[in-house]
Amino acid sequence: MKFSDRQTEIIEIVKEKGPITGDDIAEILGLSRATIRSDLSVLTMINILGARPKFGYFYTGKSIFSQLSQDLKSLRLKDYMSLPFSCDQKTSVYDVVVDLFMEDLSSMFITEDGYLAGIVSRKDLIRFMIGDADIKKTPVSVIMTRMPNVFYVNIEDSVYKAANLIVTKGIDSLPVVKVKNEKDLEVVGRFTKTNVTRLFVDVCDQEIV
Amino acid sequence: MKFSDRQTEIIEIVKEKGPITGDDIAEILGLSRATIRSDLSVLTMINILGARPKFGYFYTGKSIFSQLSQDLKSLRLKDYMSLPFSCDQKTSVYDVVVDLFMEDLSSMFITEDGYLAGIVSRKDLIRFMIGDADIKKTPVSVIMTRMPNVFYVNIEDSVYKAANLIVTKGIDSLPVVKVKNEKDLEVVGRFTKTNVTRLFVDVCDQEIV
Repeated sequence: MKFSDRQTEIIEIVKEKGPITGDDIAEILGLSRATIRSDLSVLTMINILGARPKFGYFYTGKSIFSQLSQDLKSLRLKDYMSLPFSCDQKTSVYDVVVDLFMEDLSSMFITEDGYLAGIVSRKDLIRFMIGDADIKKTPVSVIMTRMPNVFYVNIEDSVYKAANLIVTKGIDSLPVVKVKNEKDLEVVGRFTKTNVTRLFVDVCDQEIV
Repeated sequence: MKFSDRQTEIIEIVKEKGPITGDDIAEILGLSRATIRSDLSVLTMINILGARPKFGYFYTGKSIFSQLSQDLKSLRLKDYMSLPFSCDQKTSVYDVVVDLFMEDLSSMFITEDGYLAGIVSRKDLIRFMIGDADIKKTPVSVIMTRMPNVFYVNIEDSVYKAANLIVTKGIDSLPVVKVKNEKDLEVVGRFTKTNVTRLFVDVCDQEIV
């Protein structure tokens, strides 16, 4: 979206002198109020300028994309997550690795009695490779990252919250959970950087919002 | 961005009857042309409606976000990539794994005489774990994915192209290269799902475009 020269001038005037009335803007430009009416209505509609009666026009500091940001921020995890993969904590590291290979996954959620007990991340596996434990005899519970040190998100959370957690905590794969019995976490989904990357491509292709 | 009732009506009229003149739209609405002038200028400015002299208004089928999509698609890799990590193909798998652990990376680019020879991906490492080769005695060249089977992107490519490749080919980490001597690939960057996730968060936070 490109602004006309006059719209750009109006934005600059309001940035500098706002709050300012439409009449005063017109006067500075040497134009009639009627001439700039549609420019002002465009600029307020896309939220670059705000307008309040008896106050005038002011610069919001927002861009045309503030609405898109809001829309992106409101996307819900449950609509963009993947199916979870998990196994019991008594499984051997070897069997987990075979599963990861077959399913092309980077992490495996580990459960105890069906509830989230831990996660085996890429980093846990790499750490295991540096050591010399027997891969077929070591249960995954020995190498997993254990609750409460596992980052997870709730099924009601936003994609934005999950993506932010992934970036700030350096996570590959987040369990998406429902809370049962006040504290037990039932794993109902998986949200990864792959999901975010797919979403980014879809936004570029205008398939979202 | 919310349309007023009148703007929504105008869009529906143009969708149904376009191309249509402003006067005809005003007549259908029972309003004067002057009354709807700023609505028409808003709707054409944000590209929901197009307008051509002696033709009239027509519905473009584009959303307000078509411009954002274009802007996102034009982001360049060189502005969003990370520094590359690479090692020589004679390095042992053990030393590569230690490097991955220390740098918290998922993949390592492998070079020969300084140029891209292959990549050790998460999947290559997991495949190695299933076998029983000696991690300290196996050179990384044995387990790496070798050129020309390595997906890479050029420093001049877009973020969108790279993200699309990541999604469609199931890649974790793309080497970003400059072509030297017609065929040798100098690795100048690394682009991963982490970069896309960070970009997504920045778009949500309105720090991009």
